[in-house]
Amino acid sequence: MKNQFSLLALLCASTSAYADDAPKNVIYMIGDGMGPAYTTAYRYFKDDPTTKQIETTVFDTILTGMARTYPDDHTYVTDSAAGATALSSGRKSYNGAIAVDTDKKPVKTMLEIAKERGMTTALVATSQINHATPASFATHNESRRNYDEIANEYIDNKIAGKLPVDLMLGGGTQYFIREDRNLVDEFKAAGYQYSDDIKNLGQITQVPALGLYAPVGLPFALDANSNHLTQLTAKAFDLLDGENKEGFFVMIEGSQIDWCGHANDVACAMAEMDDFAQSIEKAKAYVDNNPDTLLVITADHSTGGLTLGAHGQYKWETDVIKGVKVTAGKLTQQLLAADDFEPIWTANTGIEYTPANKVKLEQAKKMGDKALNLAVKSIISDASFTGWTTGGHTAVDVQVFAYGKGSDQFIGAQNNTDIADKLINFIKQ
Amino acid sequence: MKNQFSLLALLCASTSAYADDAPKNVIYMIGDGMGPAYTTAYRYFKDDPTTKQIETTVFDTILTGMARTYPDDHTYVTDSAAGATALSSGRKSYNGAIAVDTDKKPVKTMLEIAKERGMTTALVATSQINHATPASFATHNESRRNYDEIANEYIDNKIAGKLPVDLMLGGGTQYFIREDRNLVDEFKAAGYQYSDDIKNLGQITQVPALGLYAPVGLPFALDANSNHLTQLTAKAFDLLDGENKEGFFVMIEGSQIDWCGHANDVACAMAEMDDFAQSIEKAKAYVDNNPDTLLVITADHSTGGLTLGAHGQYKWETDVIKGVKVTAGKLTQQLLAADDFEPIWTANTGIEYTPANKVKLEQAKKMGDKALNLAVKSIISDASFTGWTTGGHTAVDVQVFAYGKGSDQFIGAQNNTDIADKLINFIKQ
Repeated sequence: MKNQFSLLALLCASTSAYADDAPKNVIYMIGDGMGPAYTTAYRYFKDDPTTKQIETTVFDTILTGMARTYPDDHTYVTDSAAGATALSSGRKSYNGAIAVDTDKKPVKTMLEIAKERGMTTALVATSQINHATPASFATHNESRRNYDEIANEYIDNKIAGKLPVDLMLGGGTQYFIREDRNLVDEFKAAGYQYSDDIKNLGQITQVPALGLYAPVGLPFALDANSNHLTQLTAKAFDLLDGENKEGFFVMIEGSQIDWCGHANDVACAMAEMDDFAQSIEKAKAYVDNNPDTLLVITADHSTGGLTLGAHGQYKWETDVIKGVKVTAGKLTQQLLAADDFEPIWTANTGIEYTPANKVKLEQAKKMGDKALNLAVKSIISDASFTGWTTGGHTAVDVQVFAYGKGSDQFIGAQNNTDIADKLINFIKQ
Repeated sequence: MKNQFSLLALLCASTSAYADDAPKNVIYMIGDGMGPAYTTAYRYFKDDPTTKQIETTVFDTILTGMARTYPDDHTYVTDSAAGATALSSGRKSYNGAIAVDTDKKPVKTMLEIAKERGMTTALVATSQINHATPASFATHNESRRNYDEIANEYIDNKIAGKLPVDLMLGGGTQYFIREDRNLVDEFKAAGYQYSDDIKNLGQITQVPALGLYAPVGLPFALDANSNHLTQLTAKAFDLLDGENKEGFFVMIEGSQIDWCGHANDVACAMAEMDDFAQSIEKAKAYVDNNPDTLLVITADHSTGGLTLGAHGQYKWETDVIKGVKVTAGKLTQQLLAADDFEPIWTANTGIEYTPANKVKLEQAKKMGDKALNLAVKSIISDASFTGWTTGGHTAVDVQVFAYGKGSDQFIGAQNNTDIADKLINFIKQ
């Protein structure tokens, strides 16, 4: 209860102290696919079962409200492109739209407004940096699938002096180094530092800079056993801190929470959530050291229809999930290459290789890699009592978290476009 | 955006104005099973597809935070008894506990504290009034299943002068009028007015009073084509308003949202949500007319693993749900009694009676009423792209809504026990 009182005191104090004052820096974090079941799941996944209490997470310290995610029609279920367009520009659009309206006309984004204002601009993601969410902050395209065009637009904007992104960290060499065009060389010629070695982030020492650390998306956190987003987030703050007296705008996406959700792979999702949560800790610490900074976090939608508890059972078995050491995709590949499933299964899942599981996996293998992948996930979901309803997205409202200067604006229920409008209002000041 | 600013201004103003001041009346509303997918679903279910905008609901006007619902162990998934015990007493307990701790010892509830303070106390539900949620506010039992004992305790408390409930409106004649004991007669002898005719609520003119309007739970709102909770809520306010200068405490439960969720019956759930939402409108209006009143609304847990969108499709078809006129249970009974399914199916669902649906329903009928019931729900869920993962509960955090005097205390993430602690703190003052 004390925390609640303190939160309100803080919010009210900040309202009166900074009534007409905008934050200098804006950190906007988007957990792609991170519906309320994901933040709840992450709390219980991180809970220490040897203590009586259930430990809280960083999400529990900064929740302010929830947001409606529907696209610009009555289907109610958004994709990441329409979601990111709403979150970047304050405009609802159609699924697939990259910062264009329903007439396919460009809509101005907060990153562009920030750049106009003279702020340093940055995008950080674990997907390819030309994927729907980061793309919707700095490019405009009628379709998220036009990956090459979107990548081109990043450098073409720079060459044309058209509100470029000063720092981009993510994946995507496949789209940036092509037979028809080498965008990396063009970025270098335009004065950008370039790095493709995530183990040597010190290669980048200043903005403008481009870091591309994978052909498409970065490896899953679970498979890499590494929190890449946290590393890139820390690097971004190192580069952005104090770099520009007009401040900075950075969008940081936990891109692959969504991908694990699409795959219905709960262990994969929890590892991505952990990477995103640790990135948020970095951002919170930055705000603590720079109180003229606003941190806002939300999701574009929820993915997979994740539920904690399934098949009538009143429990969610986090021990099972903690025991899974690789994504179902990687485990499937390992099993396909093996004569004897048992040692690989046991080492990578910790789930007993029962006769029933043996039969299920062996029969699935005969039907091909897709069937085997489904069998692997089905055993993990059933053993942990994790539920899924779709390989796509769902319409449930998502949470909104805010911390720092101006965070009081994000209390209560709001539209995803309201979040953008409020941030743009701050950035314009 | 204006609303958000206004909300904060109101909250901050109320903090300074009423710093050490508690509300006179407390209205506590619990949507049993009403996780975030239900309030989102209700918005889209109520959306007018002939207008461009998506209309908001009463829930969107008063959201303040979210709550953690886990019981007193590491299973994470609560039942309604442990949930209600946390929400009534501020104490986590085991699933099945009716206001007792893990040692099965009684824990004091806010209704009892309110009665000690001289407030008028009331319980309103569409379940039997001795069901887990209302029971956990005024009785203590090691098991929610001891329905007769719980019913006995309501009157035994009155006879013993032990903090009774002044007004109870719900179902449960089966438990109150038994061969071994007629509790209705005992309540009458203790000075309670009694009514069992919901069409004639005027029979009750003052507290203390008992209204039991069904043998067990009241009919589902969808089947009754009537919003019984809204009627009972309005009646409760009529009886409680100005009745006692010390104010009143009332707990109003939307009991059967949960039951529809257990049944995985989405049309049933939306009708119960509508009844609950309209009850909230009544409560909000009461607060508007009596600003010394606090309204707090939450859920004990989510039920069924409801998702909006399923099977990879990016849409949720509310027209299908709006076309369903009866619960799957009632439709199953009608189909079982019929020779020709088609006219009954078409009239009650509006879903085309395709050859595939015909085969599915007729084959299911041969397997019995349970199979037919599942087939009915499967067709409705598939046609509307509604997902479900369980016949039980899930662990996802639930929303917290607050309005009126002291509502600022409920901003942000909190434990379900925190909600109780804050309310008890107010009631004690």
